[in-house]
This record gives sequence, C-alpha cells and structure tokens, in this order.
Amino acid sequence: GHPFVLLSGPCVIESEEHVITMAKKIKKITDELGIPYVFKSSYDKANRSSIDSYRGPGLERGLEILKRVKDEVGVPVLTDVHTEEQAKIAGEVVDMIQIPAFLSRQTDLVTAVGETGKVVNVKKGQFLAPWDIDQVVEKLESTGNERILLTERGASFGYNNLVVDMRSLPRMRETGYPAVFDATHSVQLPGGDGDSSAGEREYVPYLTRAAVGAGVDALFMEVHDCPDDALCDGPNMVRVEDLKGILKQAQEIDKIVKR
Amino acid sequence: GHPFVLLSGPCVIESEEHVITMAKKIKKITDELGIPYVFKSSYDKANRSSIDSYRGPGLERGLEILKRVKDEVGVPVLTDVHTEEQAKIAGEVVDMIQIPAFLSRQTDLVTAVGETGKVVNVKKGQFLAPWDIDQVVEKLESTGNERILLTERGASFGYNNLVVDMRSLPRMRETGYPAVFDATHSVQLPGGDGDSSAGEREYVPYLTRAAVGAGVDALFMEVHDCPDDALCDGPNMVRVEDLKGILKQAQEIDKIVKR
Amino acid sequence: GHPFVLLSGPCVIESEEHVITMAKKIKKITDELGIPYVFKSSYDKANRSSIDSYRGPGLERGLEILKRVKDEVGVPVLTDVHTEEQAKIAGEVVDMIQIPAFLSRQTDLVTAVGETGKVVNVKKGQFLAPWDIDQVVEKLESTGNERILLTERGASFGYNNLVVDMRSLPRMRETGYPAVFDATHSVQLPGGDGDSSAGEREYVPYLTRAAVGAGVDALFMEVHDCPDDALCDGPNMVRVEDLKGILKQAQEIDKIVKR
Amino acid sequence: GHPFVLLSGPCVIESEEHVITMAKKIKKITDELGIPYVFKSSYDKANRSSIDSYRGPGLERGLEILKRVKDEVGVPVLTDVHTEEQAKIAGEVVDMIQIPAFLSRQTDLVTAVGETGKVVNVKKGQFLAPWDIDQVVEKLESTGNERILLTERGASFGYNNLVVDMRSLPRMRETGYPAVFDATHSVQLPGGDGDSSAGEREYVPYLTRAAVGAGVDALFMEVHDCPDDALCDGPNMVRVEDLKGILKQAQEIDKIVKR
Repeated sequence: GHPFVLLSGPCVIESEEHVITMAKKIKKITDELGIPYVFKSSYDKANRSSIDSYRGPGLERGLEILKRVKDEVGVPVLTDVHTEEQAKIAGEVVDMIQIPAFLSRQTDLVTAVGETGKVVNVKKGQFLAPWDIDQVVEKLESTGNERILLTERGASFGYNNLVVDMRSLPRMRETGYPAVFDATHSVQLPGGDGDSSAGEREYVPYLTRAAVGAGVDALFMEVHDCPDDALCDGPNMVRVEDLKGILKQAQEIDKIVKR
Repeated sequence: GHPFVLLSGPCVIESEEHVITMAKKIKKITDELGIPYVFKSSYDKANRSSIDSYRGPGLERGLEILKRVKDEVGVPVLTDVHTEEQAKIAGEVVDMIQIPAFLSRQTDLVTAVGETGKVVNVKKGQFLAPWDIDQVVEKLESTGNERILLTERGASFGYNNLVVDMRSLPRMRETGYPAVFDATHSVQLPGGDGDSSAGEREYVPYLTRAAVGAGVDALFMEVHDCPDDALCDGPNMVRVEDLKGILKQAQEIDKIVKR
Repeated sequence: GHPFVLLSGPCVIESEEHVITMAKKIKKITDELGIPYVFKSSYDKANRSSIDSYRGPGLERGLEILKRVKDEVGVPVLTDVHTEEQAKIAGEVVDMIQIPAFLSRQTDLVTAVGETGKVVNVKKGQFLAPWDIDQVVEKLESTGNERILLTERGASFGYNNLVVDMRSLPRMRETGYPAVFDATHSVQLPGGDGDSSAGEREYVPYLTRAAVGAGVDALFMEVHDCPDDALCDGPNMVRVEDLKGILKQAQEIDKIVKR
Repeated sequence: GHPFVLLSGPCVIESEEHVITMAKKIKKITDELGIPYVFKSSYDKANRSSIDSYRGPGLERGLEILKRVKDEVGVPVLTDVHTEEQAKIAGEVVDMIQIPAFLSRQTDLVTAVGETGKVVNVKKGQFLAPWDIDQVVEKLESTGNERILLTERGASFGYNNLVVDMRSLPRMRETGYPAVFDATHSVQLPGGDGDSSAGEREYVPYLTRAAVGAGVDALFMEVHDCPDDALCDGPNMVRVEDLKGILKQAQEIDKIVKR
C-alpha cells in the first residue's frame, strides 16, 4: 500500500490568480507532509442546480490557466470533462481527466476519456452500487487504458441527501484499481438549498478519517481560502487553513492501515 | 384534466421493419381506445450497463426510420438525445425530444433541447427529489420553450432498485406542466443482472393503475412484440398483446380521477 | 375481489365523547357509501417521539370506551397493543387487534396477538421488505390463526421520510392474505418536527387513489374533526369533512380494478 | 477522549460452557491489549426473522449464566431486554442493559431500563435519523439515569440492506453521551437469506477502522469461535481468532484520533 495521494483545489476556476495562489498554498502543505499532490479545478460546472449559477471560464481559457498552474507551480493537474470533444482537447493539457458522477454511465464519454491515454478518475454515480463500477471499468479497459481511479462521492439516500457506504471502498478496490474518497462532495446535500446544494463541511474531517481507516489510495478534497465567498460548492469546501490538520491525521491513520 | 396521452414503442430501434410494425400495432390499439399516441424509440442507447450491449442504428439512420414512422404510420414521434448536436439534428425530424434521466442536470443539453422549440420530455433523474425538477424547468423556460413534460421513472432506493414515490406526480404538476409516468423504466432493477439491468414487468399494470390513480397527463410505456428477444430492456417491457388491457383499465381510472 | 373495507377513527382516544362522535360521523358516511367499516383508535401511543406527548387513557379505560363504541354505534372495533398481556386483555373486547410497525418482528407479541383468535392487522415495519412479511405471516399461522391483514404504511427512505412502494401491495397479497393501505401514516415525516412527526395530509387523496389503483382489500385512514387540535398525528390525519369525497373516488376506482 | 471500550461476546447464549469459554478468550485478548471489556450475550432473541429459529435459554437461566460469567471471569456483563419486567429482573444481575434497535422508540421500555439505574445502551433504530436519538435520550434522562450509551448499527437502505452513515457518530456524541459502533450488526443484510438474515463478515475490519477513525467511545462486536455453526447471526459474527488483529489496529487509530 502506497501512502495516499491528494487531489485538491478550488471547485471551479474563479480566476487565474486565485487558482495559482490556491495551488501554491496546497502544494506547500503537501510538500511539508510529503504527500503526492495533483491540482484539481473545473473550467465549467456543467450541471449546476440553477441556470443562474456561475459556471467557470470555459474550456479554452480554463486549459490555459491549468497549463500555467502546471508549469508555474510544478504539479500535475486534473480537470473534469462533459463531452467527447472536451476529453480530446483537455487531454492535450491535463494529466488526469475526471468523469463526473452523473455521466459515469455515458459510454461514449467514458471511452473518449479512456482514449486520451491520460489517467482517468471516474466518480461513481450517486445511483450506482459499488459493484456497478465493474462495468464502467470494462468500458475504460476496452480502450486499452488501464490508468484508472475510482471515486466514492456518496450514494443517493432519500431526498437531498447522500450517504457514504464505506463498504464501497474495499469493494471498488477489488477491481484492482485504486479507490479515491471524495471528502467534500460526500458531504453535499444536493439541492438542499432549493436553487443550490447545501453542504456539511463540518463532517469532512470525520468522513476523511473514516475513509482512510477503511482504506483509500487517494483523497479528493476541494479547498478554498474563503469558502463562504466561493462561486461554487462553498458550503462543503474545506478552508485552506484547516487542510494541514486534516491531512496530517489522515496520514497517520493511513500508515497504520497500510502497515 | 385532459385524458392521458400515450408515449410508447420499443426501447430501441431494432430495425426499420420492426419499428414500423410496432408503431402500427400500437396505433391500432390507441385508435380503438381513443388515446392520443406518440411513437417513441431510441436510435442510440448511450448509457448501457455493458460496453458489449446493442446500442441502436445511430443518429442518422435512426432519424430516417423515425421519419418513415411519422409519414407512413401517421403519428408524432419522440426520441431521446445525448448531446447538444444531436438535439439540433433530431429537432429537424421528431416532434418531441426526451432528456434522459442521468442527463437531466446537464445545463447545456437541457437548454439545447429547449432551443429546438420542440416539445421537451424531461426524465427526472433517479438522484433528484420531486422539487429539484423546478430548477430543470427554469433552465428550459430560459430558452423560451414552455412545451415541457416532466417524467417520473423512479428514484434510487438502496442498491440496484428503484422506488416510485407517487407523491412526485402531484408535486411535479405544481410546476404547471404535465406529469408523465414511465411505467416500464420504473420497474427496472438497475444493474440487477450484473452486466445488464433486470426488471419486473409483472408490476407494470399495478404501478400504471396507481400512477393514473394519483393523476397523470401521460403514460410512457415501452412495448415489444417479443420482449424476451428484445435487444434492450426486455425484462421490463410490456408485451404488445397486454397493452390494450392495461390501457383500458387505466383509461377508466383516469376518467374518474379527472371528473 | 370484494370491495374495500375501511379501518378508521381518530389516532388516539382523546375522550369518550370524542370517540363516539367520530365513530358516528364516520359510520354515517360509510353507510351512505355502502362501505364495511371498522372503528380504530388507540388507548395508548406507546412510541411517541417525545416523552412529553399525550399517550391516551390507558388500557382499562380505553377498552371501556371502545366497548361503548361497539355497543352504541354498532361497529366492530380495532385497537393496537404493545405487550403480550395487553393482547390477551384487549382480545376480550375488540374485534381486530393491530401489531404496530416497530413491533412487527417481536415474535412473542406476534404470537400472543395470533393466539387471541381475533382478526390480526400487522403493520409492516418501515425497515422490512415486502417479502419479509412472509415470516411474520408464518409466526401468526403457527398459532392457528389465519384471520390476518397485512398493512403497508411506508418504508424508510433516507432520514425523516417514508416512501410507499406500491409494488408491496400485490407482493403482500401473494401470501393469500388481504392487503391494507394505511393512507395517513404513509404521509408521515417521522421525527420531521424535531420532537414530533410532521405530516403531509395533502397527499392522502393521491396516495389513496394510487393504492386502490394498485389493488387493496382495505383502507386504513385516521380521521379527526379538527386535526390541527388533535392530540396525536394531527399533521397527517384527514379532516372528517373530506372523508366522503376521498372514499367515493376510491370506491369507483376499486370497482374498475376488481371487475 | 478515553480509549474505546469493547462490548463483545457471542450473539446468543448457546450454553453455559460456551459462554464462559468465549468470555475467557475475549478477556485474554483485551487484557493483553489493555482494552476495558464488557461481556455481552442475549438470553433471548426476541425478534428472529423466523419462528423456527433458536432463541436462547430464556431470562431466568440466562441471568444465572451471565452471573457466572461475571463472577468467574471477572468482567461486567451486558444483555438486552424486551419488556419492562425483564428490565427490572435483568437489572438485578447485569451491569449494563441494552435496548434493542426495533424497540428504541417504545417509551415504557426505555424508561423501565432507565429506572434500573444501570448503564443503558440504546441501539439506534434502523428507521431513525441520528438526531432522532435526542428524544430517546430525553426519555432516559427523565428517569434520572444519565449513564447512557448510544449505538450506531446501520440505517435502512433500500430492501434487505443497511448502510452506516459515519456522520451519525459525531452527531450522536453531540448529545454529550458516548457513541458506540456496532461492527457486526452493521454488516447484516436483514432478511437477506429469506428466512434469516445474511451478513458480510468480511467488511467488519473495514467498518471498524472507519468508525474508529470517525471517533467512537466503544466498539460492539459479536464474536464466536465457530461462526458457521453459531445458533444466531453466524454470517456477521467475527471469528475469535481474528479479534485481536482487528482490535489492535483499531486501538492504534483510536490513539491518533483522540490525541
């Protein structure tokens, strides 16, 4: 068992400056702790609850910014795509491409992402059982790409609520691929604020320790310097000043679990 | 309250001949019963569980066939789309465009379908609460399109199971738009057969009568002359020889409810 | 298929006078509609959310009052019990004994109720699958009692919410015993008001019509002349002035379904 | 934060000899690890799925055996009760009394257990939200008893399945009372074998580490020397030879979390 990797950044690219600042802050923390770090941010939030919500700078400008993060901060970068075309274009720039949970059953998108040859991170749909991911894996493997990560981000539990079934982490690892725990989307209350999702940021440390206790290969955690002013997912993002404490504790648990 | 409309056909276009035959058979039944009828079939099943499953004839050939149904059988036609491009192209041919449940939060697809000006049928995602559909409606209305149908097709209920919350029908009608009950996808057991979805066809008549009792504006029901040999969704499709009986009973209940 | 029976009354015995008045009002309605009627009320609400809530007049006084209803109003009576001793004592007075949902797996209570020889109404636990009721039926049958009713009152669906899976009605009827739909507890939001359960009375007519459409042998419906002042379950009880309209529509649907 | 306590033993008292042997084996392990240990076993399984299942030696004989465990092995003992009378009688012998999950809303049982003055362990019902436990706590506190433990044992998740929402552990601790994680009932598949519950023993180590990561005050874990031959709950009980490894890892995580 390798120590866990961190996939982290602000939910959406708010500005070039903000993204660079955040990447540097997070890199400083992960360097101090010796945690491998991949920067994550979205250029387009394509499934916001409301049509009036901020979506991001778009593909072209977003990739320019992600490239600058990569070059200037010196970290691999991850972003999510929503169409086959975006997969191809994003694959020219980023190191890891993410398939959003709602889209995790769209065969053409899944294979288009696989065909980029980049590392693929699939978010398991809120409507899927842990073993349903096996079919998604087969779709990816059909492209010859075996650089796959499988992410738990909560399952539908009644209305406007998600629950993390920690059994899903060992079950997904049975595929032979690494399992990621998405600590910040797992505490979303989807649609919980009527025209946007609410969130329970206060549970992130508990669920992170629990998931690392169950056993994970990577943590996914959206982080912001001022979540209350964030343009997306504020209620569930972690404050950057809390990140180090959360990771440190997780790291110690991880060592015990993987000994 | 108008009597309910029927949206019906085989899940996927298996061949030109099959589709024409099915459309004629269903039309004969609905003509006898005096039920307005819209033919439905998919040119591409874009989110099959397994990569090895049959997907359909594709957009171009599929639309040719749907056009022939329209001209030859004399019924309006409905199909589902998975990308913005498909929405535009399909909108040239079909009368009603459907947004698949998994894609019901994808803003660009939703607005692209709205912009065709065609009647839009949104399947409510298995991960959405009934009131979450309000935001989808707003996205559609932002395009100026107010010809909207809202479909209940079951909500996630544990793993590999769906439950129909009949409260969702009156709740969705509070938007002012018609509510549709999808009687055949509501009895799916998603992923229930490992590499494909299982289904409980035997419950279709019960759930149909229940939904019509709760109050609906349309029924969606996939029908096949030989479901056990169907190329998609066999376990939950209704046998064409059972259709008339189901509809007749539903029609009588509908009259009482809407009196 | 016999026409449905009605099990109805105020949730809890608030006073002798109130119960007699309510029984007469409901009997008048069911007589007019020709619906067989069983009066229901509880002498003790043994599982209120809060310790401060009203519980009822208790077993002894409650049974006196129920006896008076029986004699004076001329209707069979139903009440629920919570211990083996209560089952024996209540069985001397009432015609039908109900096993509460939370207690539907307590073997000794189930068999004690069976042994009274009275008609038994089991509420299916919120934590049970429809087929789990088969084992409860076997427990009852082991006592030689085969006068059994099986009631759907909603299944746990996330937190503080229930969902009615209409498939449960035909599935429970496969046991060969009658299925009852509990229209008023099915719209409870358990614990939804913090120290008591909330409810969505407005959905009772929709769910009643849906259940009758799916097919039921009896309806269970708690009714009050002034639900907002009721000492228990106010938010989900039906106003007595709305009862006739709901039943009439249900009756017409029932006729179609059972033809 | 004190290190966690272990509540453990075979699900049901199979024989005096078996119980003594098991208590000694478990005590040896907890002594070596320095974990405070309370022996648990049931004298009566009062809510078995099937009427034909083994229930135990009964109250009187069961308490004799538990007393012998207490005297001979030198450990405090815990058992569960199902009626008010049993609470009083059991309270004469045992140190800790457990309220079963299905009965966690029965006011009279809850207060009867409270009135024994013994330590009370409430299993949170599978149908309760974490915050619903606040009302149960109030019922117990009304008796003057403030020696309360609150146990998570999974919430209903669709049919024949439970899910552990790890958020419930910190949420229940907000009451000020200790939270217990029941690692073996949480992996039950209720009714999953038709006439008995199935279980996924293989997930016990994962969920235990997860719960300790989230933060617990005690672990509840049913243990058997030969689970496949156990008279109750075999599929989810832990093999006694696996206990030490599970506890050791949990202990190390516990230290980190409580530092």
